[in-house]
Amino acid sequence: MKILFSAPEDDWGDYRDVLPAALVEAGIGADVVREAAPETVDYIVYAPNDRLHDFAPYTRTRAVLSLWAGVERIVGNPTLTQPLTRMVDAGLERGMVEYVTGHVLRHHLGMDAHVVNPARDWHPAPPPLAADRPVTLLGLGALGRACAQTLAGLGFPVTGWSRTAKKIDGILCLSGEDGLVGALSDAQIVVALLPLTAETENLLDADRLALPARGAALINPGRGRLIDDDALLAALDAGWIGHATLDVFRTEPLPLDHPYWRHPRVTVTPHVASATRPGTAARVIAENIRRAEAGEPLLYLVDRARGY
Amino acid sequence: MKILFSAPEDDWGDYRDVLPAALVEAGIGADVVREAAPETVDYIVYAPNDRLHDFAPYTRTRAVLSLWAGVERIVGNPTLTQPLTRMVDAGLERGMVEYVTGHVLRHHLGMDAHVVNPARDWHPAPPPLAADRPVTLLGLGALGRACAQTLAGLGFPVTGWSRTAKKIDGILCLSGEDGLVGALSDAQIVVALLPLTAETENLLDADRLALPARGAALINPGRGRLIDDDALLAALDAGWIGHATLDVFRTEPLPLDHPYWRHPRVTVTPHVASATRPGTAARVIAENIRRAEAGEPLLYLVDRARGY
Repeated sequence: MKILFSAPEDDWGDYRDVLPAALVEAGIGADVVREAAPETVDYIVYAPNDRLHDFAPYTRTRAVLSLWAGVERIVGNPTLTQPLTRMVDAGLERGMVEYVTGHVLRHHLGMDAHVVNPARDWHPAPPPLAADRPVTLLGLGALGRACAQTLAGLGFPVTGWSRTAKKIDGILCLSGEDGLVGALSDAQIVVALLPLTAETENLLDADRLALPARGAALINPGRGRLIDDDALLAALDAGWIGHATLDVFRTEPLPLDHPYWRHPRVTVTPHVASATRPGTAARVIAENIRRAEAGEPLLYLVDRARGY
Repeated sequence: MKILFSAPEDDWGDYRDVLPAALVEAGIGADVVREAAPETVDYIVYAPNDRLHDFAPYTRTRAVLSLWAGVERIVGNPTLTQPLTRMVDAGLERGMVEYVTGHVLRHHLGMDAHVVNPARDWHPAPPPLAADRPVTLLGLGALGRACAQTLAGLGFPVTGWSRTAKKIDGILCLSGEDGLVGALSDAQIVVALLPLTAETENLLDADRLALPARGAALINPGRGRLIDDDALLAALDAGWIGHATLDVFRTEPLPLDHPYWRHPRVTVTPHVASATRPGTAARVIAENIRRAEAGEPLLYLVDRARGY
C-alpha cells in the first residue's frame, strides 16, 4: 500500500515518525512517501497549502484524508471525486477547549487591566461570577460542543447556536436565523467556532455585531472569514464590541500593517487555538485507512453539498 | 421588621438593591435602613469597619449578621450578647475557582505574549496540552480542593499538598515536609492557597522557590505572608520562577514604590480573587433571618469561645 503525504515540509517533519508508527499500531503495512506516480497511490494525506490540486490522475486513490479540520479550500475542487475526510483530532479538541476557556476567563476576569497596569492602579473590584456572565458559542460541532460543556461546567450560562437544531444538556441550543438573533442578543462573550461555508462567510456583520451586550468580548478561533473585518473595526470603535481576540484571519500571517495589530482593543493570537497535534492526528488517519480497507464507513467523511 | 445595615457606604452601594431583593425572595417583609433607634432594630447586618461598636442598646435585636468571613474584630466585644454569624459565601469559592483556573490557563497558554506584542510577532507555536503541564496546589481546604478538581477536569496533572494527609479523587495528594519537596519539584505552575499560620508564614522561601521547573509560574491568591518577598524577587531575577501573579500582599493596597509593581515578570491583581459577592452573600443573610424567624438554627453561628 502506498500513502502519499501531500503537505508542506514542516508537516512532514511533524508526521514522518508518528504516522508510520500509528499505521503499524493499526496493523497496516504501508509506505508513506513524499512523491509517487499518481496511479500508484492508495491514499493521500493532504494539506491544501502544498502543490497537489489536481486529483484526476489519482485513479487508484481510495480516500483523501485532510490534515486540517477546515476543508473549505478543497471541498469545491471539481477534480476531487474520491471520498474526503476532515481532521477531528482529540488533541485539537483539547487544545481548543483550553484556548476558548482561557480566553473566556481572561475577558471575564478582566485580566488585561492587571497584566498591563503602568499607573499601578489598585481597584479591588471583583468581577461578577461566571453565573452572571452569559456566553454564546456560534457553532456546535465537536469543538463547539466540547467548549460549551466546559464553560457550562465552570458556571457560565451558555447559549449555543448552530445551523441545524441540536440538543446538549445544560446548554440553551438555538438554530436558524431567528435563533441567531436570540443567541447574540445580550451575550457578554461571543465565541465563533463555525465552519466556513457560503452561509457563514461574513456572518458577523455590522447588524449582528450590534446585538451583544454593549462592550461584549468577541473571540474568534474559528475562521477569519466568519467576520466582516471592517464591520468589526467599526463596532470596536463605536464601543459595541469591547474587545476582540482573534486567532484566524483572511491572510495569515496577519500583515504587519493590518489595523487589527494596532487596535488597542484587539488581541491577535497567531493561529494557535486549533493546532492539530501530530501524535493524536496520526492515529485518526491510520484508523480511517483501516476502516477503508475493512469496508467500514469512514470517520468524519465530508458531505460535499453541505461543505463540511 | 427593621434591619439595620451597619457597614460603610461602599458596602451599602453594593447591597442596597440585592439585599431587599433577597429578603423578598425568602418571603421576608422588612425595611433595610441605614439609621434607626437601637431599640427598634430586629437584625443588624454588620461590618466592623463602621461606627457601631456598642451593642448594649440593641435590646430587641435577634442576631448580628457579619458581612465578613473573619470575625476577629467583633467576637471579643463584651457588649455583644446577641447571636453572631459569620459570612460563608458560595460566591467566594466560585470566584476563587474562576480566578485560579483563569490565571493557570493564562500562564499555560502564554497569553501575555499576545496581549502585549508591540513587535507584532507571529510565531504559530501552539502550547503543549494541559495533560503535559503539571500544576501544584499548596493547600487543600475547601478552596484548594475546588480549584484542584476543576484543573484536573481540564486535563492538568494536579498535585496537591496539605499539612495533614488528604485524599481527593484524581489528585496526587502529598503532605508533610517531604511531601512539600515532592509537590514543588518539577511543577510548572504553583498555586498557593494555604491558610496563614506560624508554620506557613514565609513557606515559599529561597530553598523552596528553587524546586519547581525552571521558569515555572507562581500564583498566590492565598495570603501575602506565605511568600518571602525578597526570595521571590531573587528567584524571578535568577529565572527560577518565570512569572509571579500575586493577589495578596503584606501591605494592601500594595505601596506604589513596591518592587512587585515594576518587576516585568510580576502581575499584581488587587485582592480580587477571594471577594464576597453581594448577590450570593445577600441570600445567606436573608436565609439566616428566615431561619431566626422560624426558630431554626442559624447557619455559620460563631462559637465565642473558639473565636470563629
